[in-house]
Amino acid sequence: MRIAFLGPEGTFSEEALNASAGAGHEHVPLGSIYETIMAVHERTADRAIVPIENSLEGSVSTTLDTLAFDARDVHIVREVALPIRNRLIARAALPLEQVRRVISHPQAKAQCSRFLRERLPQAELVAADSTADAVRQVAATDRDWAALGTALSAELYGCTVLAEGIDDSEENRTRFVYLSPQAEADPAGPEAGAPDRPWKTSIVCAIARDRPGALLEILRQLADRDVNLTKLESRPAKTGLGAYVFFMDIEGGAHERAVAAALEALHEPLTSLRVLGSYQVG
Amino acid sequence: MRIAFLGPEGTFSEEALNASAGAGHEHVPLGSIYETIMAVHERTADRAIVPIENSLEGSVSTTLDTLAFDARDVHIVREVALPIRNRLIARAALPLEQVRRVISHPQAKAQCSRFLRERLPQAELVAADSTADAVRQVAATDRDWAALGTALSAELYGCTVLAEGIDDSEENRTRFVYLSPQAEADPAGPEAGAPDRPWKTSIVCAIARDRPGALLEILRQLADRDVNLTKLESRPAKTGLGAYVFFMDIEGGAHERAVAAALEALHEPLTSLRVLGSYQVG
Repeated sequence: MRIAFLGPEGTFSEEALNASAGAGHEHVPLGSIYETIMAVHERTADRAIVPIENSLEGSVSTTLDTLAFDARDVHIVREVALPIRNRLIARAALPLEQVRRVISHPQAKAQCSRFLRERLPQAELVAADSTADAVRQVAATDRDWAALGTALSAELYGCTVLAEGIDDSEENRTRFVYLSPQAEADPAGPEAGAPDRPWKTSIVCAIARDRPGALLEILRQLADRDVNLTKLESRPAKTGLGAYVFFMDIEGGAHERAVAAALEALHEPLTSLRVLGSYQVG
Repeated sequence: MRIAFLGPEGTFSEEALNASAGAGHEHVPLGSIYETIMAVHERTADRAIVPIENSLEGSVSTTLDTLAFDARDVHIVREVALPIRNRLIARAALPLEQVRRVISHPQAKAQCSRFLRERLPQAELVAADSTADAVRQVAATDRDWAALGTALSAELYGCTVLAEGIDDSEENRTRFVYLSPQAEADPAGPEAGAPDRPWKTSIVCAIARDRPGALLEILRQLADRDVNLTKLESRPAKTGLGAYVFFMDIEGGAHERAVAAALEALHEPLTSLRVLGSYQVG
């Protein structure tokens, strides 16, 4: 199968793909998370793996918005949680105090903000489109530059790791999801490798603006059926300040009776409801 | 007064400052939103103005996280909502199909994603730390590069506007907030210019992980007192996947009886609650 991910080679997405998909799949690096998701929607890839939430930085908004507003024929079929370990990477060994520029994806910069403030106060911080892109830039220069990136990218681009253990928190983990054109797991797909775990269901829904009690009603419908909400996140509905859609993760699969009944009951207080997927907890 | 904002000169933050603060204040451009907020916390600036939410892109997570976890002595004293109008900017006039590179802050890129896909498919997209930084880079090169930025930055850096009306949505607005070391509005501060509008109160709270019904309980406490929730947003508590803090905006000021009673009642189901500020709707 052709599996799309946010390239270039050596990103955290490819680390997650390597760690979970098994052999025999073709890796297809694409230029943005939007293109990666839309490749499944448009059937130019069989699957995609994209980051959806980081334990420090929160949801990946491009992923949520593309799933909610653009890729309506795409389903989440598997979840993978990966510890994120950033490295400070340069073309060749170099004392930290001589690093003049650090290139990084804004999320990696945020994840290592304390290290950067305390150990590299002299360095100019420059944004890149991905961690692998940052490492690629550093590999191509002979200046005193460093990048934040993965161990895999350091290896791929022939670079040296200057420092590790640089993340603000040990708790830095990212949830990735596999996307498929079908809602059901395919025994030939990367989702077949999922461990045997409890199920969860991700939904996105919109609440009428003139119904301020609707959210309370939703939580009550879930609580009445002992269905636990494990995540609740609002995102702009893109129709003006103050209008939101809600992303929710609930415990259990859509095939389970209590979940199916709760989903049915939720239709009433909502103006729209879409199940993004039912899949096993990663 | 010294008012800090995300620099360099010509950012949307400075546009918001110009549009709202009145004359006689010193503008202090700083390198990041974190530094801008911490300047008030550490009393090296008297006020700060920072973006907190965009109608398309959602909350500015650095602002929420810095307010929640780092700047505990800082209060929101005023809100300003500004329409965001990105421009495509180059050093000199240039047909769109000849633009080889577009430099932009990731948020501006997301706001203009349809225009970039449809009208500039040939251009390489490169990230910058702010819209003004992107325009500064473009002003300094004689290559066929363009930037996404403000009308103010095009003027400041002597550049030409190649295209306007390029945002995905007319509904592109950003809420900015003024931060002060005092909870009360100061008649000598920029917050004194706020229009006479209804009040709102922003809070951040944490729910014990072993109390799944707590969110329902909070919404019920508010509904029982006819206090409307206008915004609910979860952010990682930074202690692991699945642990969240909630940012809420409720209608009314903390000086109003129903709001004060609701805030009092909320303490019970929560492990922490902090009022970020009571201020007039922008």
